Amino acid sequence: MQLGMIGLGRMGGNIVRRLMTQGHTTVVYDKDPKAVAALVADNATGSSSLEDFVLKLEAPRTAWVMLPAGKITEATIEALSKLMQPGDVIIDGGNTFWQDDVRRGKALRERGLHYVDVGTSGGIWGIERGYCMMIGGDKKVVDRLDPIFKTLAPGIGDIPRTSGREGRDPRIEQGYIHAGPIGAGHFVKMIHNGIEYGLMQAYAEGFDILKNANIEALPAEHRFDLDIADIAEVWRRGSVIPSWLLDLTASALAQNHTLDNYSGFVEDSGEGRWTVNAAVDEAVPAEVLTAALYTRFRSRKDHTFAEKILSAMRAGFGGHKEPPKKA
Amino acid sequence: MQLGMIGLGRMGGNIVRRLMTQGHTTVVYDKDPKAVAALVADNATGSSSLEDFVLKLEAPRTAWVMLPAGKITEATIEALSKLMQPGDVIIDGGNTFWQDDVRRGKALRERGLHYVDVGTSGGIWGIERGYCMMIGGDKKVVDRLDPIFKTLAPGIGDIPRTSGREGRDPRIEQGYIHAGPIGAGHFVKMIHNGIEYGLMQAYAEGFDILKNANIEALPAEHRFDLDIADIAEVWRRGSVIPSWLLDLTASALAQNHTLDNYSGFVEDSGEGRWTVNAAVDEAVPAEVLTAALYTRFRSRKDHTFAEKILSAMRAGFGGHKEPPKKA
Amino acid sequence: MQLGMIGLGRMGGNIVRRLMTQGHTTVVYDKDPKAVAALVADNATGSSSLEDFVLKLEAPRTAWVMLPAGKITEATIEALSKLMQPGDVIIDGGNTFWQDDVRRGKALRERGLHYVDVGTSGGIWGIERGYCMMIGGDKKVVDRLDPIFKTLAPGIGDIPRTSGREGRDPRIEQGYIHAGPIGAGHFVKMIHNGIEYGLMQAYAEGFDILKNANIEALPAEHRFDLDIADIAEVWRRGSVIPSWLLDLTASALAQNHTLDNYSGFVEDSGEGRWTVNAAVDEAVPAEVLTAALYTRFRSRKDHTFAEKILSAMRAGFGGHKEPPKKA
Amino acid sequence: MQLGMIGLGRMGGNIVRRLMTQGHTTVVYDKDPKAVAALVADNATGSSSLEDFVLKLEAPRTAWVMLPAGKITEATIEALSKLMQPGDVIIDGGNTFWQDDVRRGKALRERGLHYVDVGTSGGIWGIERGYCMMIGGDKKVVDRLDPIFKTLAPGIGDIPRTSGREGRDPRIEQGYIHAGPIGAGHFVKMIHNGIEYGLMQAYAEGFDILKNANIEALPAEHRFDLDIADIAEVWRRGSVIPSWLLDLTASALAQNHTLDNYSGFVEDSGEGRWTVNAAVDEAVPAEVLTAALYTRFRSRKDHTFAEKILSAMRAGFGGHKEPPKKA
Repeated sequence: MQLGMIGLGRMGGNIVRRLMTQGHTTVVYDKDPKAVAALVADNATGSSSLEDFVLKLEAPRTAWVMLPAGKITEATIEALSKLMQPGDVIIDGGNTFWQDDVRRGKALRERGLHYVDVGTSGGIWGIERGYCMMIGGDKKVVDRLDPIFKTLAPGIGDIPRTSGREGRDPRIEQGYIHAGPIGAGHFVKMIHNGIEYGLMQAYAEGFDILKNANIEALPAEHRFDLDIADIAEVWRRGSVIPSWLLDLTASALAQNHTLDNYSGFVEDSGEGRWTVNAAVDEAVPAEVLTAALYTRFRSRKDHTFAEKILSAMRAGFGGHKEPPKKA
Repeated sequence: MQLGMIGLGRMGGNIVRRLMTQGHTTVVYDKDPKAVAALVADNATGSSSLEDFVLKLEAPRTAWVMLPAGKITEATIEALSKLMQPGDVIIDGGNTFWQDDVRRGKALRERGLHYVDVGTSGGIWGIERGYCMMIGGDKKVVDRLDPIFKTLAPGIGDIPRTSGREGRDPRIEQGYIHAGPIGAGHFVKMIHNGIEYGLMQAYAEGFDILKNANIEALPAEHRFDLDIADIAEVWRRGSVIPSWLLDLTASALAQNHTLDNYSGFVEDSGEGRWTVNAAVDEAVPAEVLTAALYTRFRSRKDHTFAEKILSAMRAGFGGHKEPPKKA
Repeated sequence: MQLGMIGLGRMGGNIVRRLMTQGHTTVVYDKDPKAVAALVADNATGSSSLEDFVLKLEAPRTAWVMLPAGKITEATIEALSKLMQPGDVIIDGGNTFWQDDVRRGKALRERGLHYVDVGTSGGIWGIERGYCMMIGGDKKVVDRLDPIFKTLAPGIGDIPRTSGREGRDPRIEQGYIHAGPIGAGHFVKMIHNGIEYGLMQAYAEGFDILKNANIEALPAEHRFDLDIADIAEVWRRGSVIPSWLLDLTASALAQNHTLDNYSGFVEDSGEGRWTVNAAVDEAVPAEVLTAALYTRFRSRKDHTFAEKILSAMRAGFGGHKEPPKKA
Repeated sequence: MQLGMIGLGRMGGNIVRRLMTQGHTTVVYDKDPKAVAALVADNATGSSSLEDFVLKLEAPRTAWVMLPAGKITEATIEALSKLMQPGDVIIDGGNTFWQDDVRRGKALRERGLHYVDVGTSGGIWGIERGYCMMIGGDKKVVDRLDPIFKTLAPGIGDIPRTSGREGRDPRIEQGYIHAGPIGAGHFVKMIHNGIEYGLMQAYAEGFDILKNANIEALPAEHRFDLDIADIAEVWRRGSVIPSWLLDLTASALAQNHTLDNYSGFVEDSGEGRWTVNAAVDEAVPAEVLTAALYTRFRSRKDHTFAEKILSAMRAGFGGHKEPPKKA
């Protein structure tokens, strides 16, 4: 099956490569001609503009947009939609806010265009492991694209099957899901990332407590000098908490026990924030997912204004002078 | 009534002064002779050693220990108890862990000595406003000391009376309470401080959101350049959230809108931690009091190890490189 | 000065009454004729429809809309705006989402109408204490309405003045603030309520720990049977944590120590949610304000689905059977 | 190698069975003769009392105590230690508080007895998967017991090796670690369980948001009716968040999508609490691990007293009447 791909970064490029190794054909476009050339060298059909890209696709066209930021995705889809024809499909495979999908899908439908949102997980490892895909859109359109999704998905692999799933949608065990109407794909992906933040923070706090088990403020008989790298490794086998995230942690610690090669300045993408917004809209208490997000916010500041307010109050009622911050 | 005071810092010295202005007599001791001399100049009887201090008190003696740190309080009470006689009373008015009171009271009782724990609130303002006292100990002993507590307490003042309290313990409205047996005083004071942390943090976060309402990341039509000092002031009148803590905030902001004279490095004393421990022991979810404590922990670090773990994981699964920390 | 008021509930009715006692004239409307009649009896000019209401106002008209829910406020302002003329002012004094103000103000401006958003604090006590008002809008319009705001505000009263405020906007000390352009009033009020949630939760958790200090799971020597009503009362005098919210708590506990006349089912209005959204948009960690909101969400559920997930996992890995919930 | 086991519940019994299948010999004791008989049938040597148990062990003896509750473990080790002789080893493999290990190890050392604490993970699945063991104790003693630990550990299995671990302690990759001196084993196990709570809660909250994505309070165009069971399953393949805990969730949901066979009343064992205490002692902000614990506390209550305080305050300032709790 033919797929057009716009945006040939780490994710888009690898998706195209994975598709081509399974016999699909691709037309690719990126504003950076070098990125196009690299994939042309791998047998993709290159294009030099959005117009050229659309021309090289066979109707009904399928264009997968895989761009990083919200604004450029919006602008690209807008431009693309003006070049496409009724019956064509635009897939947004990036990290788009699901409410934008809903709005956009409605607008495109009025012009006869189909829209599919695909939450794509797998990161830089996806080309090998396959991509877990969470898909939103009309049934007919999603079904039509099945050969693409099937190829990109990781497949059953050697992961044990869950009992009790006999007779259920077989795509799920292949690693992709048609989650619901337009927006549902990115909604489910958003929660995936929200959970990811929480899982990461749970590990991070645990290792932090292990790391600080030897501080001088503790009584001598209650101090331990622990090997964090070994502990991360041992938990990978037979414990209750193994996961890929733990694997990555064990790997990083094996390279550098102190992690002093990392800044501790932690970015967040939109999904963590939208997850909190969704929790608030639904009145679901999401303490852990929210705390995980807030920790990232805090990691990017020297001091919060809130902390200065606390210092000021303490000076006011108790004459406390806070010492300068430790290095 | 006569009271002995050991420890003539801000709190101990002011307590002695407030007592003397109401006709009580005091014997004072501090390891710093200058501190003793300052109070002798205000009519206190000075002493040059713990032995001398005890000799100058009339039996049954009442010695109030008002020292900052746990270890020196423990050592002083231990030394003092060896000099005192059955029927004498030791008051610990500092910020002692209530479980230490329980242990200590039991040990002293075996030697015929009385022990009273007094959680004392009021800070540097207490000499004028009076001290809110939360008292633990045997009824007879606490009753015997009533003249002291009555003088130190703020009294009804101009604070409106709560209806429905007719016939109840009149000491409460004077600002002191016999909360229960030994340890109960500091237990209640601990919770007072735990709540204080939570209240402070609630204001602090609110002002932080106001302060950041004008950041560039926000859409232009949703940005506000707010005058934080004026907002703190206006809330003092007629809103739902006035308090002394808000007064202090308004005062600090009136002096310096940016609070850049404060570090934002926020200490915590034991009470906040013991409050969390008590919540855990009682299986009471105390999200806010705990978050308020953790914020202080975080304020004293450049980066947590947890954050470096997050950076490391992100590098592992997505190839994300975290930028260096902003100044 | 003349003011029209639409919505004669607790808040709207009392605002009208407070204005009239100071010589202002009012025109009132409510879809419930009885509410109109009650205020007519107090000297307001009644009206029988929105049309009638507008007719009875002198140009340039000032109409204060004080309605509970977002949808009815929106619809009423929409209808009202069609009846009003350039130069007239619509005030939204309810608990409106500030982004709705921004949108609405822009739309009205195109029709020559002025819009002012007033966050109004004071609850049922405002008629006596006055209302703390946080105002957003164009300077000229807000200045024109000053006689209204001045009358509604609590005034300096007996609250001590903050030093360092000499030469600053004198309205602030009267209890009202022109916080910024349209939307700023409700934005500041939103944060006020967010802080309120945090303060309430801090007290609530503290009392919860006090209440549970006597549970059987604790060691006998570490249990206390505390009088919560007395503790709330004693903290009102000389402690660090007095506030109106504490007064209300002490009052409720004086009536009923167990509070078993209260359900513990706690509603939230939009402000707490919008505060969290604002924190997320600004990347401000707001742990306490968020936890306070989530506690309310949780209070309204029998069990969360999250808890059932936990039960299911525990059954899966450990064979744990969770006992039925305690009454 | 010979091992004595006291406590033949799920964990103790399976450990004995796993050892015997690999050629180790065992002496077993349980206060329930049926439990002893069941293992005798599987070739263990039974015993009828602690005395008999000790007699049947060859010196130097190794007795593994695997009992559920803290008190019975304490009493059993105390009784056992009186029967054992210098050079013998007592292993506590249960969920013991690490500070109890430190105290106990010190007392036993004075009598010439060795003590080893083993945090044992693996639950009911350990007999097949092996047990991840975190061990504290003197090096010589832990080394002497290596054949036991090696057999119980899961081994490398098919879990990929972490690069960069060449030349490091090979036991780690087998799934067991000598973490440090007495207490270190249970300390590390405690953090393992603390992390486990956090991971579980992260998943639980995510599924809760998915589950509530279709509530009526949401705008119609923003509602999704999602198949939670399918989503749990799809995330098992190729996403960032697979784990054994997710496997268990997918399995439970495959059986019953609503989980209405689970109460949502969630117990906590000591480790989660001790983790929070350790974080507080070390001044490590552990938001997520703490929130996960508090959620469990809350799950076991109908309403907290804190919530009633909130209701009471709301009634006080706004006249709000909270509706009765929803079923």
